[in-house]
Amino acid sequence: MTDPNRNTLWGRVLADELAASGIDTVCVSPGSRSTPLTVAFHRHDDIRILSHLDERSSAYFALGRARRTGEVTPLVCTSGTAAANYHPAVIEASQSRVPLLVLTADRPPEIRDSGANQTIDQEKLYGDAVRWYRDVADPEATPRRLRSLRTTAARAVTRATGTPAGPVHLNLPFRKPLEPTPVSGDVPSDLPEPAVAGRDGAFVDAIGGVPGLDDDRLRALASSVSESRGLIVVGPDDSPGLNPEAVAAFAHASGFPVVADPLSGVRYGGIVRTTPVIGGYDGYLGDRVRDAWPDPDVVVRAGASPTSKPLRNYLGAVDADQYVVDPAAGWREAEFTATDLVVADPTRLFGRLSRLLAGPGSDAWRERWVGADAAHAGVVEESESFCEGRILADVVDLAPDPSTLFVSNSMPVRDLDRFGAPTTASLTALGNRGASGIDGITSTALGAGSATTDDLTLVIGDLAYYHDMNGLVALQRCDVDATIVLLNNDGGGIFHMLPIESYDPPFTSQFVTPHGLDFQPSADLYDLSFARIEGEDRDAFREAYTEATASEGSHVIEVRTDAGASHQVRERLRERAVDRVLNATT
Amino acid sequence: MTDPNRNTLWGRVLADELAASGIDTVCVSPGSRSTPLTVAFHRHDDIRILSHLDERSSAYFALGRARRTGEVTPLVCTSGTAAANYHPAVIEASQSRVPLLVLTADRPPEIRDSGANQTIDQEKLYGDAVRWYRDVADPEATPRRLRSLRTTAARAVTRATGTPAGPVHLNLPFRKPLEPTPVSGDVPSDLPEPAVAGRDGAFVDAIGGVPGLDDDRLRALASSVSESRGLIVVGPDDSPGLNPEAVAAFAHASGFPVVADPLSGVRYGGIVRTTPVIGGYDGYLGDRVRDAWPDPDVVVRAGASPTSKPLRNYLGAVDADQYVVDPAAGWREAEFTATDLVVADPTRLFGRLSRLLAGPGSDAWRERWVGADAAHAGVVEESESFCEGRILADVVDLAPDPSTLFVSNSMPVRDLDRFGAPTTASLTALGNRGASGIDGITSTALGAGSATTDDLTLVIGDLAYYHDMNGLVALQRCDVDATIVLLNNDGGGIFHMLPIESYDPPFTSQFVTPHGLDFQPSADLYDLSFARIEGEDRDAFREAYTEATASEGSHVIEVRTDAGASHQVRERLRERAVDRVLNATT
Repeated sequence: MTDPNRNTLWGRVLADELAASGIDTVCVSPGSRSTPLTVAFHRHDDIRILSHLDERSSAYFALGRARRTGEVTPLVCTSGTAAANYHPAVIEASQSRVPLLVLTADRPPEIRDSGANQTIDQEKLYGDAVRWYRDVADPEATPRRLRSLRTTAARAVTRATGTPAGPVHLNLPFRKPLEPTPVSGDVPSDLPEPAVAGRDGAFVDAIGGVPGLDDDRLRALASSVSESRGLIVVGPDDSPGLNPEAVAAFAHASGFPVVADPLSGVRYGGIVRTTPVIGGYDGYLGDRVRDAWPDPDVVVRAGASPTSKPLRNYLGAVDADQYVVDPAAGWREAEFTATDLVVADPTRLFGRLSRLLAGPGSDAWRERWVGADAAHAGVVEESESFCEGRILADVVDLAPDPSTLFVSNSMPVRDLDRFGAPTTASLTALGNRGASGIDGITSTALGAGSATTDDLTLVIGDLAYYHDMNGLVALQRCDVDATIVLLNNDGGGIFHMLPIESYDPPFTSQFVTPHGLDFQPSADLYDLSFARIEGEDRDAFREAYTEATASEGSHVIEVRTDAGASHQVRERLRERAVDRVLNATT
Repeated sequence: MTDPNRNTLWGRVLADELAASGIDTVCVSPGSRSTPLTVAFHRHDDIRILSHLDERSSAYFALGRARRTGEVTPLVCTSGTAAANYHPAVIEASQSRVPLLVLTADRPPEIRDSGANQTIDQEKLYGDAVRWYRDVADPEATPRRLRSLRTTAARAVTRATGTPAGPVHLNLPFRKPLEPTPVSGDVPSDLPEPAVAGRDGAFVDAIGGVPGLDDDRLRALASSVSESRGLIVVGPDDSPGLNPEAVAAFAHASGFPVVADPLSGVRYGGIVRTTPVIGGYDGYLGDRVRDAWPDPDVVVRAGASPTSKPLRNYLGAVDADQYVVDPAAGWREAEFTATDLVVADPTRLFGRLSRLLAGPGSDAWRERWVGADAAHAGVVEESESFCEGRILADVVDLAPDPSTLFVSNSMPVRDLDRFGAPTTASLTALGNRGASGIDGITSTALGAGSATTDDLTLVIGDLAYYHDMNGLVALQRCDVDATIVLLNNDGGGIFHMLPIESYDPPFTSQFVTPHGLDFQPSADLYDLSFARIEGEDRDAFREAYTEATASEGSHVIEVRTDAGASHQVRERLRERAVDRVLNATT
């Protein structure tokens, strides 16, 4: 353990302490200023480097890993605009509460703002989007600085994975030499332990607490929701994930159906076997259903604001006591009709509540929702019309079990919401719903895929596919296999859902923005198989998808669709579903 | 002039006022929240929209246009991470003082931070990297708000193009309806002028002043530099550009040679005919030359810190009075050996100084530099060895006159610096030397190309080419033609210049990062011709380049090179050049 210079020592201690905090993978982009970090991670026996050439994609890749696992994959880049390329993913991580640890190398203070090459102002580069920011001290081989560094590393991981989880940014200045070049006298041989070698285990053990209610408040809450007509609404999941068993226990004890966003972690899997999980709401909730049905008395919400606009509107319109359960005291419903903000970890709260409740009341309310979902599913099933949502239904139907299913903004996630009915298959459905961008989708998906042995399917529109085409290089470089379902409607299909459709021009030229790109060469570039499904041929798609998931390597299945026609089919199906639901449940 | 609602009115007034400030082109990315802006720009008779699908590329494209012309091309995007994708280009614009006007649509204040979809914290998103930030008021059809909006638009352009030029960020909240849907009573019919229709010309005429010295200080400066052994060192240019005629006048009056960075605006063009422009310094300056030569008494510097490290080291080592002329009081030399910071516009200062100076003294000093450059050029000319720098020399030699030549970081700009000797051809050489990133290069180049009728050549390495491959779509969408010289050495060639080369692993895997990509499909994807030059065949390159620039459409000429071998040739040429220079000049 002899370090040739202070930078080598500094990098090694940081890598060592991060490994002690459980880090086993780092996403590194090439650069000079970050040499001490890259070398240290490379030399650490327990850390694997995934090398990324585009920092924007790298950050989304790390986000995807963390989204899938709840664990941190640090990012390393050199000084300059490289770090700014992380910004979109940092924002998504902040909004969707996914841990991210950004390590940016920087020039030392004395040459900042003085025309030195590749030197920008990296201080607080991500503003308020990070949970914690430190401009780390200059490397120096003194016990106190090294203890400070170890403590900083441990705290960074703790903050990134805390409540709420999110991005942390450490800015690390280095002076030359950046390489492991011997510098006489730079590292004293008599540095005392444990600053240099660390402790056995982490230097600082972080003992994580989560917010919860005291017994009196909990009992009061239990009696408020007891024996009422209620809903459990679970939006897109945070990190760490909501435990489905706690949701199931709460649903059983309360008799409330679980209205589950596709990204909630409770729409798919074992919970569906035992619990009334409602997934078709996006296809039938609205004024007509709300007028015909009694309002719920109580709504208990967890997770982020739901993807479904009909659901959000419904929750904004009903006359109910609405409890937003959020461990970070966040307010996550923009209709502002919630009546209570419950600052508590929902998994623990639901578990405790379920033990206090008297048991479910009448079945009628629950059966109403179950019946509505069945009616909606029937309408969808019977229709012969093609729409993009069908492809999502097919993917949910055919995806290998277990699978990670990543769905892009803006239409695939909405189509999954409406057409991807609950199943017992172990399907981990993920999306970037923090900021709902169409950037970085492929990289996030591949990052998620890289973190498990699940099969990985990505369903993505053509604009998002184009936006992060660079992310495809990770298939080879990071050894991921994926089946990519590319819904190509040549532009922004979502705009057909908006009033701007009536104003053409500029509707087509500036909103749909057709590009006419033939994506076959993108598959050649990154060595993927490429199949094109035309003519709304669902059977051909099902066959191609089944074949792709059954074979080695990565595959793009492009499905050519007509966004306007798909939108009309969605509208027609909705009308029919509402009729059917009203017939079945009133 | 009846506006159906306040948002339509707001967008129209903003577009109108920007047009009155000289804006004729806007880069727009598709999105919903930005609908009032997009519609307004689309409807404006004097504004052309360039539509970009990837906001990162869009921002660099707008930067490229402004870098080439000094004029602003506003950016428009929707809310969310779209805006964060502008961040790298915003930083580059800030560092290299290029005007940029970022118009981000946002959700209104009441739904921020409450879980509303695609809503992030956009306030001060770019931190200190912008010259000016405003969270613009909510649209409202009242005279004072509309006057405020017009004034804001005029001020934004003025700040972006001021001293120093740079990015300005206006964040614009909009409530629904975003489309031109009639809203009864939203826009009173009796709004007074000029708030609604504007004035004849701009609402606010900005009368730009530039910093300059008073007569006494100017005379003192003139007498300090008079009759001395001096150098005029011009680094990469800002916006607005330094006037070559002022530099030439100063050089003639002082007798100082002009040491011209390739991006200075004075390395190429008419100035070379009449003035001793020195361009080979990167190939011979160093300790040996400095020891053998007398130091200059005076160095007058303008522009950013030079690209050449040998030049920066030389300036850091000589015993001279060094004047950094900067109109924005910026400090742009990181050796901290400058003795005077002259806060003045260099064009005006050089012009005034040249009228005060007594005339050039002895020719010997100037001839020494001219002779050194000639010696260096001779060594390069005689050598048969191939290196990447040869390609830059060939491009300078063969580029159509006039041309815009954009050179990527990290090696092409250094190779242009050393091998792209001064010529009288009207060659506008540009690069992104503000933050010296390898991101956004293609888009910046195409943006620059889109702003003129010059031929456009881009010389780019493979990592930078990969990084902004998305930018290539602008060739079709924005109607630009380019000849792209892709120097493909399969990874980061610059690392061969750094000590990390001795540490392999991780040198190859984590620094060079070879990707093995075959870029031919990228040309298929974007409909370019593609030619590959192998075997270090300069003649083949010269032929292919000549043919490409002479024919319609866009072309990629990939030159396969060996970065390590090129680096060795550069080193050998440098040794020989130093010997030759010392023989010739001492």
